[in-house]
Amino acid sequence: MKISKRCTEMQESTIRKLLPHADKMKKKGIKVYHINIGQPDIPTPKEFYEAIDRHREDVLSYGPSGGLEELRYTIVDYLKRYDIDIDVNDVWITTGGSEAVLFSMLATCDYGDEIIVPEPFYTNYNGFASIAGCKLIPLPTYAEDGFRPPKKKAFLSKITKKTKAILICSPNNPTGTIYTKDEMNYIAEIAREKDLFIISDEVYREFTFDGKRHTSVLSIEGIEDRVIMTDSISKRFSACGARVGLIVSRNRKLMRMVLKLCQARLCPPTLEQIGAIGAFKVFDKYIPDMIKAYQIRRDVVFDEVKKIEGAFCKKPEGAFYTIIKFPIADIEDFAKWMLTDFSVDKKTTMIAPGPGFYASKGKGVDEARIAYVLEVDALKEAMEILRRGVVDYSKCRR
Amino acid sequence: MKISKRCTEMQESTIRKLLPHADKMKKKGIKVYHINIGQPDIPTPKEFYEAIDRHREDVLSYGPSGGLEELRYTIVDYLKRYDIDIDVNDVWITTGGSEAVLFSMLATCDYGDEIIVPEPFYTNYNGFASIAGCKLIPLPTYAEDGFRPPKKKAFLSKITKKTKAILICSPNNPTGTIYTKDEMNYIAEIAREKDLFIISDEVYREFTFDGKRHTSVLSIEGIEDRVIMTDSISKRFSACGARVGLIVSRNRKLMRMVLKLCQARLCPPTLEQIGAIGAFKVFDKYIPDMIKAYQIRRDVVFDEVKKIEGAFCKKPEGAFYTIIKFPIADIEDFAKWMLTDFSVDKKTTMIAPGPGFYASKGKGVDEARIAYVLEVDALKEAMEILRRGVVDYSKCRR
Repeated sequence: MKISKRCTEMQESTIRKLLPHADKMKKKGIKVYHINIGQPDIPTPKEFYEAIDRHREDVLSYGPSGGLEELRYTIVDYLKRYDIDIDVNDVWITTGGSEAVLFSMLATCDYGDEIIVPEPFYTNYNGFASIAGCKLIPLPTYAEDGFRPPKKKAFLSKITKKTKAILICSPNNPTGTIYTKDEMNYIAEIAREKDLFIISDEVYREFTFDGKRHTSVLSIEGIEDRVIMTDSISKRFSACGARVGLIVSRNRKLMRMVLKLCQARLCPPTLEQIGAIGAFKVFDKYIPDMIKAYQIRRDVVFDEVKKIEGAFCKKPEGAFYTIIKFPIADIEDFAKWMLTDFSVDKKTTMIAPGPGFYASKGKGVDEARIAYVLEVDALKEAMEILRRGVVDYSKCRR
Repeated sequence: MKISKRCTEMQESTIRKLLPHADKMKKKGIKVYHINIGQPDIPTPKEFYEAIDRHREDVLSYGPSGGLEELRYTIVDYLKRYDIDIDVNDVWITTGGSEAVLFSMLATCDYGDEIIVPEPFYTNYNGFASIAGCKLIPLPTYAEDGFRPPKKKAFLSKITKKTKAILICSPNNPTGTIYTKDEMNYIAEIAREKDLFIISDEVYREFTFDGKRHTSVLSIEGIEDRVIMTDSISKRFSACGARVGLIVSRNRKLMRMVLKLCQARLCPPTLEQIGAIGAFKVFDKYIPDMIKAYQIRRDVVFDEVKKIEGAFCKKPEGAFYTIIKFPIADIEDFAKWMLTDFSVDKKTTMIAPGPGFYASKGKGVDEARIAYVLEVDALKEAMEILRRGVVDYSKCRR
């Protein structure tokens, strides 16, 4: 009676691994600023809840496996804002963006197949790959140039017979980088030339600053049948607990296969889908203010990083993350130390260690991800505590 | 650019495959009685909705990956009703019972490993096995003896080095059979002797008739570390659209591994978990009447089956299904015919063809599953239409 290798070898969530230490701190009366996890503090639109309140069916029955039709039409309309035309049959609703990425892997890969992904990348891609039995082949990107996507040559060097897809995320979690139209185009070219799918995680579509615009993989011509876009309402409507995501592809055969996966788990949660329909109705009222708030926070973080001697990051362009390079050799030890040995006026700061965002061993050991999901004053204080932590840690560990 | 074999080869939901035909019938103004799917018509407890109404957090944030602690404690209390003692750390909340079964497979099997399962079985086990990359090894059970579980010898004959678990479901979907304490005991013995896990799907725990009691795998002594129980609120509280399930095991190492799977998909839907807590509070008020209603329906179905010449089923003991043997050679053709060529006073009946519940080719071809999820009058009419369908079909197809 043995537990599966796939599970024993599965990487534990590095973001959540430190939580017991944070809990201990809190029990000692110490406040922990959580800039380690992408949990926004912005209120969920009240229209989300109101839509659910109005929905009172006697029986909360199974919904359609591919999601509520009204929500699927809502997605079609929503994408029109970005001049993206899709048919209602090109979209299925999933249980969070998580399931959308998992289904993309399951639909494109058999056991042992490979997906190329620029690293650092969203740490849970590892978990989905473990479940799907496919291999993530990382391609390095670097803090020094703001984590621009790998060059065409770099992609080509990693493509084997087992390569089935390229997985990208823009605006990027964890780096905050937005892929330009040109960058998206050459990635599309590779997919076409090498006969691959592109899985594009576009959860942060609206989170773009300084007038920059996001380029969706769905707007690139000539690769319509090889594009899978995954998305979620979690960040857009600050509704992470809702578990409502979506998968879009114009490849009908693929979408029929994905529907089989949808059918196996019956349906996504119904009430939260109702809430999502309500939330999309107030998109114009809700989104611009939220993005403004994040841009201000982004500026705060960037300014504060400059105050940390030896730390570095390029100005993040989107999402609500940045990867910071620290003058520290073992960031995991430092992140833990911040939760066990350090505090300022009974407060400390929790960060997400870099290595969790890399598949390549030994990478990201001096990096950490910061999520700027706190209000400006709290964020400033969290960053100042981090600065002082770096100073003190460097003294006592060197 | 190829879609994965795992998806192309995945069995389409046989229950849902006929739906387009049903939809066409409805568009022609013909009423379709759906006794093909386990979607209860009993109202969800209003306390489910009320609990959600009361829950108004500004931010609908990520919940704990293993589920809301209050719900986990609720499950601990709930199982005490059946003299089952578990710790709160023995239970994680999943996104529906579906995810609980999938996680059980992922945690016990690596690619190519095997799980023995008596057939007919719940058709979506196939889908989960496709995702997990494991193989379901079916063991036949028979309508003639009321689908009693396979004998010990039969189990032993199928065990190989690759066998990791035995998967059972009692009260059974699709057969309605309740495994006796003795039967549970010898299955436990096999697991102990052959060093296997038992995955026990106990979604229908309360759905037992004629004073029969369900035996949970959790109440069997001496196999505590090899038991995984999966469950859901869907049927119990008529809340299928909620997607709230659970996985219970006293094997802590296994549960730590399952938690990694939970973390990969972040958390189960929050609002429905809140609803589930509300629903469990009215368990005593809600459940007994519901079970009484199902027992009456069970009797109706059993009486009506006797009126169908050549049809056969033993009296189902639990759940809300029965598998009926029909005097028909090709039940899939018949089920479709009922939706394309037959109606009585602008009404027809939809059933779930037997083959979808079998992994062995050629089995179940003269069987269908009936879900008695309609009120008595509707159920009687649906069954009478079915009877007349059998008569007419036999005339025109022979």
